[in-house]
Amino acid sequence: MREIYRGKAKTVYEDGDEVVMEFRDDITAFDAVKHDQIKGKGFYNAQTSAKMFTLLEKSGIKTHYIGMDGDTRMRAKRVEIVPLEVIVRNIGAGSITKNYPVKEGTEFKRPVVLFDLKNDTYHDPLLNEDIAEALGASSREEMGRMRDLALEVNGILKGFFAGHGIKLVDFKLEFGRYGKELLVADEISCDTCRFWNEKNESLDKDLYRFDKGDVLAGYKKVYEIVTSAL
Amino acid sequence: MREIYRGKAKTVYEDGDEVVMEFRDDITAFDAVKHDQIKGKGFYNAQTSAKMFTLLEKSGIKTHYIGMDGDTRMRAKRVEIVPLEVIVRNIGAGSITKNYPVKEGTEFKRPVVLFDLKNDTYHDPLLNEDIAEALGASSREEMGRMRDLALEVNGILKGFFAGHGIKLVDFKLEFGRYGKELLVADEISCDTCRFWNEKNESLDKDLYRFDKGDVLAGYKKVYEIVTSAL
Repeated sequence: MREIYRGKAKTVYEDGDEVVMEFRDDITAFDAVKHDQIKGKGFYNAQTSAKMFTLLEKSGIKTHYIGMDGDTRMRAKRVEIVPLEVIVRNIGAGSITKNYPVKEGTEFKRPVVLFDLKNDTYHDPLLNEDIAEALGASSREEMGRMRDLALEVNGILKGFFAGHGIKLVDFKLEFGRYGKELLVADEISCDTCRFWNEKNESLDKDLYRFDKGDVLAGYKKVYEIVTSAL
Repeated sequence: MREIYRGKAKTVYEDGDEVVMEFRDDITAFDAVKHDQIKGKGFYNAQTSAKMFTLLEKSGIKTHYIGMDGDTRMRAKRVEIVPLEVIVRNIGAGSITKNYPVKEGTEFKRPVVLFDLKNDTYHDPLLNEDIAEALGASSREEMGRMRDLALEVNGILKGFFAGHGIKLVDFKLEFGRYGKELLVADEISCDTCRFWNEKNESLDKDLYRFDKGDVLAGYKKVYEIVTSAL
């Protein structure tokens, strides 16, 4: 299979009109200024993502997910990735507490949905519909559809994790254009979500970003919950 | 009259249910890291703003403007200022060329409307509707109304200046809540607009920001155009 993309933590191969995504053990933070390898992390992210996509599909949300191809490889529909990150925040944490007068731990009355441009050079700047259209990155109409889907995904994930005593603080989605459809694409894992347990301890990449504890233990905990329940 | 607000370039006094805005000669840039006084600048900004508000009122846009109270003092309705800056961009210049892959001078197919939080500590960060609501700064509905008004104001100002060979590159508006109405408030001047002449030379605060030439001459030029035409 031909490699078509090598990201910070995944390598993507083309296979006809499908792709195979290899979840690597690389872990990065702060625009990859911090980077390491953690043996087993790729496995947990691949498995957790597979379960999350399965949950979404069962709940009526279309995703790019086809199935697993071994322990760390996911087979998916080949989509055209929308060059935006869609971020949903339920509780204030991370960049929103740096860029705005929002305290960490603030529970928002309504989820806050944000769109960032996927662009390392410009450090993934926040977009609104007008800028996205001016840049040719997306359209007002497409962003409206992504917002609705992201809110629906938020409800499903939030509900699932609430059933296991875990708060979904925020998460990032990517969408893929597939004919006239928008599919949830990329991954849904401890790299792309913030999860807090009952004590508000992180079970996600913040363990790595801020050296808060055993990274793999957090990823494994989430993996165990999703694999036992789904 | 009691002083109720002293900004970087204006002082506001209360007078019953009206306010009097004194346009000072202070000029600042880059979060007021750069600041100076330019004798006569307050006069030009006050007079230009008065004419711009008059033009908008004639064109059916409601503003806070009541009249002039001497050369540098404007009498206005006392409004509750919405804590957002509404920015309309027709041509790429300034911060959008730093924060996004947009080249200076890019003519946008459609105007780009942005909302920034008025907050010096956080350097006026870009907002979307969800963040604005989470912060209690505005609502989705109010932002929609401000966007529509800003686009209408853009048309009026763009048309007026086009008739005098001047391009309206971008501008900033502030709005005031006044009962159930939203009024265009604050000022419309060479401090808050970018104007380019036929040679794409600045006639606005960029003269000061980037030491591009005679600041007062630019402000005077715009003043002369608006006072001779309106």
